Amino acid sequence: MMTVAFTHVHIIGIGLIGSSLARAVKAHDFCQTLTLSDVSGNVCATARKLRMGDRVDTDPTKNIGTADVVILATPPSTMGHIACQIRDCLKPGAVLMDVGSVKGPIMEAVSPHVPDHATFIPAHPIAGTENSGPESGFATLFQDRWCILTPENPHLPEVQTAIKFWEAIGSGVVVMDANRHDIVMAVTSHVPHLIAYTLVGTAMDMETVTRNEVIKFSAGGFRDFTRIAASDPTMWRDVFLANKSGVLEVVDRFIEDLSALKRAIRWGEMETLETHLARTRDIRRRIIDAGQDVETSNFGRDN
Amino acid sequence: MMTVAFTHVHIIGIGLIGSSLARAVKAHDFCQTLTLSDVSGNVCATARKLRMGDRVDTDPTKNIGTADVVILATPPSTMGHIACQIRDCLKPGAVLMDVGSVKGPIMEAVSPHVPDHATFIPAHPIAGTENSGPESGFATLFQDRWCILTPENPHLPEVQTAIKFWEAIGSGVVVMDANRHDIVMAVTSHVPHLIAYTLVGTAMDMETVTRNEVIKFSAGGFRDFTRIAASDPTMWRDVFLANKSGVLEVVDRFIEDLSALKRAIRWGEMETLETHLARTRDIRRRIIDAGQDVETSNFGRDN
Repeated sequence: MMTVAFTHVHIIGIGLIGSSLARAVKAHDFCQTLTLSDVSGNVCATARKLRMGDRVDTDPTKNIGTADVVILATPPSTMGHIACQIRDCLKPGAVLMDVGSVKGPIMEAVSPHVPDHATFIPAHPIAGTENSGPESGFATLFQDRWCILTPENPHLPEVQTAIKFWEAIGSGVVVMDANRHDIVMAVTSHVPHLIAYTLVGTAMDMETVTRNEVIKFSAGGFRDFTRIAASDPTMWRDVFLANKSGVLEVVDRFIEDLSALKRAIRWGEMETLETHLARTRDIRRRIIDAGQDVETSNFGRDN
Repeated sequence: MMTVAFTHVHIIGIGLIGSSLARAVKAHDFCQTLTLSDVSGNVCATARKLRMGDRVDTDPTKNIGTADVVILATPPSTMGHIACQIRDCLKPGAVLMDVGSVKGPIMEAVSPHVPDHATFIPAHPIAGTENSGPESGFATLFQDRWCILTPENPHLPEVQTAIKFWEAIGSGVVVMDANRHDIVMAVTSHVPHLIAYTLVGTAMDMETVTRNEVIKFSAGGFRDFTRIAASDPTMWRDVFLANKSGVLEVVDRFIEDLSALKRAIRWGEMETLETHLARTRDIRRRIIDAGQDVETSNFGRDN
C-alpha cells in the first residue's frame, strides 16, 4: 500500500494525539523504527506497557538522532522550548512537524530553533475527542479527517514528505497560509470550545438552579456543550492564548450577533428572530454531505 | 404490563413530538382508540399513510368528544387558540396536556380556556431531535427520558393520571413549579439552542472565511453546534419569546462570563483561564453517570 517508507519516526508527547499517531503509524506499518518520549515518567510507563513504540524515554533527545520524521505532540506553549532542546540532535534532512491547533504563534516559537539542515513543516490534524492521555488514543483518529499544513514555503520538497506521512495514516491534506488557518480554526473550533466552556461554567454558577437539575435535564441541548467542555483545559488555555487575535475577533462578532438576537427577543420581533433561526439549517445538510458528520439524529444516541 | 388503560387518547399536532407520542402509545398498546389532528392536510395524509392513529383529521374538534387524554403538541404560540377552539368539545373528566418547552406562558395562555369539567396538566417531555415533521418521530423518543409536569395544584388526582400516561411510554416523571421549570430549561436547553443558532450564523457571516472551509473543517467542534442549530426555527422562535425572562437572564450571565474569559485571553492571564476551563470537566462525568448521555468519545461518531 505505502510506496514511501520512513526509516524512523520519533513522536514527542504521548497524549491523545501523540498516542493516536503512534498507534496509526504502527497500524499502517510504514516505518522501521518508532520511538516516543514524554516528560512524564508515568506516561512513558503506560506507553511501554501498551507497546506503543520500539523505545520510550522521558528525554526527547534520547532516540531522536536517526529519525527522519520528528513530531511535536505536546501542549503548544511547550513547543518552542522543546524545539530548542532537540535542535542539535536532529539528523540532516529531518522533517520536524507539530500538531498544534494554532499555527502562526507556534511557527514564531519553533522556527528560530530549527537548524539549517532540518525543515519545519507546521501541521494541524483536525481530529480529536474530549478525552486526554495515552490510553484514550486510537489508530483510526486521523482516518478520513483533514490535516492542514502551513509551511512558510509550500514549494519545498519536504512538504511532499509531510503530505505522504499524513496520507499514509489515512488523512486528506490541505496546504494553507498560517494566518488563514488560524482564523478558520477560530471559527470552527476555538470559539466553539470557548463558548462551550463558558456556558457550562455559567450553568454551574446559577445559584437558582441546583446542579443536579442541570444534569438531570441536560438532554435538552446542554449535554452537547459539556462534551466539548470536557476537553483538556491546559491544551485549550494554550490554544486560546496562542490564537488571541483570531479568537477575540470571532468572539466579538459572536457577542454582537447574540446581542442582536437578545434585543429581538426582548422586543418580541418575531420575524427578525425566525429569519435568523431559519438560515442556519442548511449548513447542517452541507456538513453531512461533505462527510464531516453522521446523519443520524441526536448523533445516533437514541437509536 | 400496563395496569391503567386509557380509553381514548387524542393528539393535536403531528410533528416530531406528536408523531412520536402516537407511535409510543401504539407500541405500548394501552389505549383503545388513538385519534390525531393537524392543521396541515398534507401532514394528515402522511399520518394516515403511516397508520399512526385510528382517525386523523385537520379539525382538532372532530374526534375529541370521547377522549380521556388530549395532548397539545403544536407550536407554543398556537396553544391558547387551540384550547379555545376545543373547550366545548372536551368530555367531562378529560385531562388536557401540552408538551411545550416553556410552562409559565403556556399556562397563562391555555388555562383560561379550560372548562371546569376538564383539567389542564402542563407537561414537558425532555426529549427531541434536530429533525421535524411526522416522518421523523419514533416510538422510543420518550424511553428513559424525563417528563416534567407543572400543575397549578400538584395534589389533584388528574396529576396521577398524567404521571401514569408518561410512565406508560417509558418516561420518568418529575412534578415542579412552572417558574422553576422555565429557568432550569433556559439553562439546559433554551440558551444552548440560542447560542448554537447565533454561532452558526456568525460563522456564515465571516467574510474572511469561505463557507466551504467552515464546512470542511467543522469536525473541530463546530459541527456539534450545527446539529443543535438545525432544529425547527418556528418552534424555537416561540420558545425564546415565551421564556423571555428566563432566556434573557441566562444570556446576560453568559455574556458576562464570556466577557471575563475574553479579558483573561486579551491580558494573557493563564491561571484565571485554566481555573475556569478545568472546573467544567467534572460535570460531563456526572451527566454520563446520570444516564443522560453516552460515554463513547465524540458521541461514538469515530468508532
